Amino acid sequence: MKQYYMPVKVLMAENCASENKKVFAELGKKALIVTGRRSAKACGALDDVTEALTANGQEYVLYDQVMNNPTVECVYEGGSLAKKEKVDFVVAIGGGSPMDAAKVMAMLAVCEIPKEEIFSGVAGFPALPMIHIPTTAGTGSEVTPYAILTNPAKETKTSLSAPSLFPKYALLDERYLQELPRRSMIHTVIDSLSHSMEGMLSVRAGELTDGMALQAISMIGRCFSALLEDSLSKEDRRQLLLASTLGGMVIANTGTTVVHSMGYSLTYFHGADHGRANGLLLPEFLKVARKSEAHRVEKMLHAFGTADAEQFAGKIGELLGEREKLTGSEIEKYTALASGSKNIANCRVPITPADIRNIFTASLG
Amino acid sequence: MKQYYMPVKVLMAENCASENKKVFAELGKKALIVTGRRSAKACGALDDVTEALTANGQEYVLYDQVMNNPTVECVYEGGSLAKKEKVDFVVAIGGGSPMDAAKVMAMLAVCEIPKEEIFSGVAGFPALPMIHIPTTAGTGSEVTPYAILTNPAKETKTSLSAPSLFPKYALLDERYLQELPRRSMIHTVIDSLSHSMEGMLSVRAGELTDGMALQAISMIGRCFSALLEDSLSKEDRRQLLLASTLGGMVIANTGTTVVHSMGYSLTYFHGADHGRANGLLLPEFLKVARKSEAHRVEKMLHAFGTADAEQFAGKIGELLGEREKLTGSEIEKYTALASGSKNIANCRVPITPADIRNIFTASLG
Repeated sequence: MKQYYMPVKVLMAENCASENKKVFAELGKKALIVTGRRSAKACGALDDVTEALTANGQEYVLYDQVMNNPTVECVYEGGSLAKKEKVDFVVAIGGGSPMDAAKVMAMLAVCEIPKEEIFSGVAGFPALPMIHIPTTAGTGSEVTPYAILTNPAKETKTSLSAPSLFPKYALLDERYLQELPRRSMIHTVIDSLSHSMEGMLSVRAGELTDGMALQAISMIGRCFSALLEDSLSKEDRRQLLLASTLGGMVIANTGTTVVHSMGYSLTYFHGADHGRANGLLLPEFLKVARKSEAHRVEKMLHAFGTADAEQFAGKIGELLGEREKLTGSEIEKYTALASGSKNIANCRVPITPADIRNIFTASLG
Repeated sequence: MKQYYMPVKVLMAENCASENKKVFAELGKKALIVTGRRSAKACGALDDVTEALTANGQEYVLYDQVMNNPTVECVYEGGSLAKKEKVDFVVAIGGGSPMDAAKVMAMLAVCEIPKEEIFSGVAGFPALPMIHIPTTAGTGSEVTPYAILTNPAKETKTSLSAPSLFPKYALLDERYLQELPRRSMIHTVIDSLSHSMEGMLSVRAGELTDGMALQAISMIGRCFSALLEDSLSKEDRRQLLLASTLGGMVIANTGTTVVHSMGYSLTYFHGADHGRANGLLLPEFLKVARKSEAHRVEKMLHAFGTADAEQFAGKIGELLGEREKLTGSEIEKYTALASGSKNIANCRVPITPADIRNIFTASLG
């Protein structure tokens, strides 16, 4: 059976937070605002949110210590703050790390979950209502029921999933992407491209998500040259932000595939940015995928505006610049880790450990 | 500001109702089942639903008297029954008429709305939770917040809209379309095509819905020959059902345009089937639209698999067969009615009364 579900209300506009003060007012008297250390302030989103809350006569408390690839400690710290301060709702501002951390904090605010059980399944647990405001063009977390945390026991990143982790509102404002450093823009756009492409190669892919994925891929394709030349217009940034939300709508229903599982090792052990990690692996994955899913791969490459997987690999390579290198023993270790992940079974394409080893070797060997 | 919202959980499978008995159980102890007079029984859906309810130990009461283009009297009759029987939820089975009627019944079950105020705005009112099961490939009502009723005072059909009119679940099972008469299949598919095409020409069209619309248009285009030749396969029916749900997801966010406003007169005064009415007008509307929205019209025609609007008109004409004819005075009357409708302002394309008159004349004069 297939299923489609994405209940987040998405509001899109310049000055979206200021123009939609009433959505904050709807959710209660006091908010926990969750951000990373810098960009939510730098891009102006934090000011817009606190102004909206203040205008509404709402209180708030700020947790601005979310690091990249958030840890279990971080989300429990924020969850405790939410409990102690008796907040009614959570506002997340940032890229994937603050948004994902905020989701778990919203859950921990109303659930007693022992730290050692956080990765054992939270599907049935409630969470405080949330408003998510993305400031990158990558994660799509604002429209997914997922939160991805660093999992030291398994030496990887692990995804938590629960319907309650869908935010109530996503506010999209392309102004917040204006000051995003070029590298962050590139890496997050590649993450979003990977979401749409992996979504089309998931066993759960279907007609209700294929159109969204192709739309997102073609929007990213159209912005590619400007991304490479660092000449993105405001309209390009708007398109890339929407492409990232579309990618989120896709993976909310399809999940991701082996590219994400493999990428987690590059992030966990080498500190590679999440989107970059996916981008390093995606072209070689498409080459494997086209053997059994030629039609889907062809449609995606056509939508992106490339002739074939080789040309696609060249273009992504140009964006990523010099590549990380893995040793033979690293490849063996990461192959074993990815082979054990549940995302393998989520691929439409049969993927063996040998395929994984080959993708690592061809990409980073 | 643009907005995207579609909170219905869509479940897709053969034997979808039987395999998802638990979603019925979730919604309460007693159901009102709403159907038309014939097809819900004939296609097997009613049996599947009553079996699921019985297996769950749930009670139900049946209202099977919804006519085409449901009246205010009909929905108040069903609403009273729901109240009297103290049902907890509503199950709608059928095409647009039973589904739309069921929505208003679900609202009347929990709201006191005087009959003469039913068209004065119901946006803030609650409704009982609903499960919708489409048995045609047209309406998309299973994923919209709209219900369209016959409005004798205004000599047209009028749409009610409220977030509470979104069903909680939509169950899609292509088996229920197997016995649909050829004419009904053609008319409902054209309705769904019109939803996706009008959705792309709405002022509220945007990147989050364009991909869905193009996907639906291309799915219908691929099934076109089989539809014409009455040789639809099971897979074709599945695709047409999903295309119709996609069209619903589109108009849930974009609304419809002047084609629907104009078509209502053909239904109200001439009894033309709703989808047929749209199909009679759609090609000439596209010819007007391409003057100012050439790129969008071209993308839609390309997705459908036709070279230009003339070829598209020929194809739709073949499907519709002999056309109704309007007199000059009828055209004047219907032009005046459509010119006063709120859907005019919803068109990306500027539409004057002269355009409306020309579309009527070229289509049916």
